[in-house]
Amino acid sequence: MTTQQLTEQINKKKSFLCIGLDVDLNKIPNHLLKEEDPIFSFNKAIIDATHHLCVAYKPNTAFYEAYGLKGWKSLEKTINYLNKKHPEIFTIADAKRGDIGNTSSMYAKAFFEDLAFDSVTVAPYMGKDSVEPFLAFKNKHTIMLALTSNEGAFDFQTKIVENRELYKHVLETSKTWKNSENLMYVVGATKAEYFKDIRKIVPNSFLLVPGVGAQGGNLEDVCKYGMNENVGLLINSSRGIIYASNNTEFAQDAAAKAGKLQRQMKDILNK
Amino acid sequence: MTTQQLTEQINKKKSFLCIGLDVDLNKIPNHLLKEEDPIFSFNKAIIDATHHLCVAYKPNTAFYEAYGLKGWKSLEKTINYLNKKHPEIFTIADAKRGDIGNTSSMYAKAFFEDLAFDSVTVAPYMGKDSVEPFLAFKNKHTIMLALTSNEGAFDFQTKIVENRELYKHVLETSKTWKNSENLMYVVGATKAEYFKDIRKIVPNSFLLVPGVGAQGGNLEDVCKYGMNENVGLLINSSRGIIYASNNTEFAQDAAAKAGKLQRQMKDILNK
Repeated sequence: MTTQQLTEQINKKKSFLCIGLDVDLNKIPNHLLKEEDPIFSFNKAIIDATHHLCVAYKPNTAFYEAYGLKGWKSLEKTINYLNKKHPEIFTIADAKRGDIGNTSSMYAKAFFEDLAFDSVTVAPYMGKDSVEPFLAFKNKHTIMLALTSNEGAFDFQTKIVENRELYKHVLETSKTWKNSENLMYVVGATKAEYFKDIRKIVPNSFLLVPGVGAQGGNLEDVCKYGMNENVGLLINSSRGIIYASNNTEFAQDAAAKAGKLQRQMKDILNK
Repeated sequence: MTTQQLTEQINKKKSFLCIGLDVDLNKIPNHLLKEEDPIFSFNKAIIDATHHLCVAYKPNTAFYEAYGLKGWKSLEKTINYLNKKHPEIFTIADAKRGDIGNTSSMYAKAFFEDLAFDSVTVAPYMGKDSVEPFLAFKNKHTIMLALTSNEGAFDFQTKIVENRELYKHVLETSKTWKNSENLMYVVGATKAEYFKDIRKIVPNSFLLVPGVGAQGGNLEDVCKYGMNENVGLLINSSRGIIYASNNTEFAQDAAAKAGKLQRQMKDILNK
């Protein structure tokens, strides 16, 4: 999927919502545990109930790997279901990978070819040659961590390097990499005031924004400072939507939560 | 496994060699491709031929994920084989993970519980709360990236933060984290002169050292500056050993390469 197609979807659906599929067997409705593949059954129900309200889904690989082979199978079934039933949806493997060149190539193969995701999240610590192998894939997107939504973001990301915060240095440097037009960035919603400076560095890039909802970020503020003329934002909510309830109505309850966010987004887009 | 047990193994085997199991189906001997699980068959042959020469094996998860469900199965079979046949071997999941707290907990569960590795590599960019969930596991080890062996290491890791390089800041900061005694660090062999400064910050920690062999690092130099009184080093070689040849004698050829490194290590330990 191209970023232009993504913007078209956003304008069509009046939504820039991404739903995080972080499926924890301890949190899903009990009745699903009897199913052959509870994780996939949960995801399928959530997707069926919410796909018209969002433009992206983001399974976090940790939640699948924790269940070993079965978990990886659930991940495979989830992405296959999305690609078959909803090819218009932008898919994100939230994997936070990154390694030396020949290894990053294998990760890129895993997520862009074997699982056929549209995008994958990566960590910047190992620099240029750890990210460029991902960028080499046409119409695939590499979403690099810039400023994350957790407390630990202040340990290193906001430290001053050459007169500016490390995350700004990361943003600036990444623009010089080969095929950097395939980059998007993770910017946490819990620091909305930072979006102003970030937009000076990467005015045109899409930003994936976690931290609205469970982590306390404010949608209005993020849009005020972070939106560009192509919208340029994907706002993620995971726990706040998928665990809206854990009874037999869980999918409809999730849709209600997603719908509430989507209506706020519609109002913002119509302004 | 405790670090004390690891040092005992090193002294017993006169080796601090770690063999990287980065299995690429395009590089392994052709005759293995007919097997039901070529990756596991390759690993088993390498392990059977080299386990007396090394103290650790390090499968890099990228090389398994690239083959999807089959690859994850090969990884599972490999770690199960190691844990059953060679419980004295230290096992490293080279996964370079790291995410917000609840997600890192799931990764820790994946590698320490489901797959039962002794250790996992993690990236530091997201800070304290992205690493501490790994550190909470008793007798499990979290090997954090400090200074890597690739060119991209100079993009961010060596930039000056508060009067010292970022990687030194990362090392220093990590010592204040809860259960930091469960930390080890990745330090690339291609920068042997840096070990002197690193040992001032983390005198007692084990360092996992990639970059000897294919990437050009020198064993003597690394030991000169990096060794401590408990040895404190695990020197990794992947491609240089496992792809020594690709004929029917590949495992013996790998053992010959591993043996050459082991003898150099024996000489160093006997000094």
